[in-house]
Amino acid sequence: MTEEGDRFEFPYDKLLIATGSAAVKPDFAGIDLPEVTVLKSLEDGRKIKTLLKSNRIKKAVIIGMGYIALEMCESLAGLNIAVDMVKPNPIFLPWLEPSMARTVKEELEAKGVGVYAGQTVERIEKTADGLQVNCRGLTLAADMVIVGIGVTPCSQIAENAGLELSTSKSIAVDRKLRTSDENIYAAGDCADAYHVVTGEKTWIPLALRANRAGWAVADNVCGKEAQLDGVAGTAVFRVFDFEVARTGLNVVEAQKFGFDPVQNMIQSRSKAHAHPGNSTIWVNMIGDKKSGRLLGTQMAGKDGVAHRINAVAVALHNQMTVRQFSQTDLSYAPPFGPTWDPTLIAANQLIKKL
Amino acid sequence: MTEEGDRFEFPYDKLLIATGSAAVKPDFAGIDLPEVTVLKSLEDGRKIKTLLKSNRIKKAVIIGMGYIALEMCESLAGLNIAVDMVKPNPIFLPWLEPSMARTVKEELEAKGVGVYAGQTVERIEKTADGLQVNCRGLTLAADMVIVGIGVTPCSQIAENAGLELSTSKSIAVDRKLRTSDENIYAAGDCADAYHVVTGEKTWIPLALRANRAGWAVADNVCGKEAQLDGVAGTAVFRVFDFEVARTGLNVVEAQKFGFDPVQNMIQSRSKAHAHPGNSTIWVNMIGDKKSGRLLGTQMAGKDGVAHRINAVAVALHNQMTVRQFSQTDLSYAPPFGPTWDPTLIAANQLIKKL
Repeated sequence: MTEEGDRFEFPYDKLLIATGSAAVKPDFAGIDLPEVTVLKSLEDGRKIKTLLKSNRIKKAVIIGMGYIALEMCESLAGLNIAVDMVKPNPIFLPWLEPSMARTVKEELEAKGVGVYAGQTVERIEKTADGLQVNCRGLTLAADMVIVGIGVTPCSQIAENAGLELSTSKSIAVDRKLRTSDENIYAAGDCADAYHVVTGEKTWIPLALRANRAGWAVADNVCGKEAQLDGVAGTAVFRVFDFEVARTGLNVVEAQKFGFDPVQNMIQSRSKAHAHPGNSTIWVNMIGDKKSGRLLGTQMAGKDGVAHRINAVAVALHNQMTVRQFSQTDLSYAPPFGPTWDPTLIAANQLIKKL
Repeated sequence: MTEEGDRFEFPYDKLLIATGSAAVKPDFAGIDLPEVTVLKSLEDGRKIKTLLKSNRIKKAVIIGMGYIALEMCESLAGLNIAVDMVKPNPIFLPWLEPSMARTVKEELEAKGVGVYAGQTVERIEKTADGLQVNCRGLTLAADMVIVGIGVTPCSQIAENAGLELSTSKSIAVDRKLRTSDENIYAAGDCADAYHVVTGEKTWIPLALRANRAGWAVADNVCGKEAQLDGVAGTAVFRVFDFEVARTGLNVVEAQKFGFDPVQNMIQSRSKAHAHPGNSTIWVNMIGDKKSGRLLGTQMAGKDGVAHRINAVAVALHNQMTVRQFSQTDLSYAPPFGPTWDPTLIAANQLIKKL
């Protein structure tokens, strides 16, 4: 190691960039007020905890309506804090089939959450008794504001070094997690991945991929070859009593990648017909009219969604057609679902449109 | 239709045999007592309901310890009926990895169920205040006895007609559900199926396959060709707080079909580490040392087992290796599991033994 002012130099044989991602921070006035915080780092978490412990927080505004924002909403509501959510895009959960998104939105509203999609925050002001969040046609009072509008890859060091960047400015890596420099690896939220449905690069920064890539780099650096297949974009979150999950592509994404997608929504049940505690499950399945391939699935319901999506994810890894998936031997017992799993019912119905 | 005594003759172009299966009924003395019943038909169900409604049933003995017997045990215990279970095989749930089977057995015993594996019932006698179930070294008192020792295919008509029979005397059918006579189909519990792991015939009479085969026969009879891939032997049941699931082959079955199986048991958690309501999940995964193929999985736990098994089932349909399965992008969020789904942890650990 050599040192020169605040510059350090370390020699290396193999280098790993694991710089992660950073919360996107908007630049409107008031963003740096002490009761306004993004949510990404341990520091952010501690700040939120300290605010909550002050017992002054009765009302919160969350800017953003993605996974993290919605999970935060549930947590705050669980502490009896009134929550309003606000974001510029007028479409709530735009990646989700519209009627399913409406169902989730209604759940939020039924729990007393104010959902203001289509409102851009222009500034946050300090008032006598708290904060005021100002949009063009809307003013929301709050004791705390949480900003959860997504993350961006920390790829500056890679860009400075002249390494190839990819989707959303993530660092381009091959299946061995190697960047465009064969002695430099990148893993975690800062790096891209192959998508198993499209075969193309994507940037979906989620925990499992990050963790898996870390292990694979360690193997590769130590001379034990490890290759990663890629991601299917499987994700799940809970918001109040609802589980919402997705894997693969939605119709808009599928069109973008040259597929001829058709989707079909079904409603089924979380347990067998006569079983107590039965609730509705919505499944929206997407297939390709040209090849018959299964492209993706979205699900929502109060029970049994989070793990059901995994059967579809494995099908995507195997590039199964909708018809092939419809033949799979999934589990059945009355406490856990109908004879035909909701994902199979979805496949059977989608086949008719393909 | 022509009639001759109690013989009927119907002409047909295509014939479907859908005779189902019948409960195996042992022939010891007392089997025909009114408080002793098998459990298969609607009539059996009504008989059990009538007995229960009499309010005389305080103690029940269940002969058999399979899915149906265990589900019945839970139902009776839920009505505050004391339950003893008895069967000849000294091994409880012999298809399940032994330590996992022990965990389930301990759960039963903790709920006050008497589990007498290794006891053959020799006769049931009427006593002054109920029934007495006699084994060689054990006598159990009961107000009701339920016999759930399995089912047998109703294939007599097919055998009489000279059609080819298969495993366990089920009716042999091809992927189009045709018997050895091209104008005769068979579907449901009476017919066999291909196993997607072995490629060989098997007889695993479960609801989804029966239902699916019915639809496929209808298509084929109506001239719309339908072929079924086969079964993976996926099954799940709940007993008290435990979910127990399986798919594919266990070690003994795998050896029988010429594989060189290795199994590995792991313990993981149903939710992320710090999440409330977290419970243990046991996963036993079996792979083939020769090919690296994933052959089967068994799981048990109090939460999140029933649907998790489906990811493995889809992998079996695709003849994935353990390594390929270990790369699948399964869902993660703290309320639903650890970052690496327990089935992925099982795969990662099994790889080390392959």
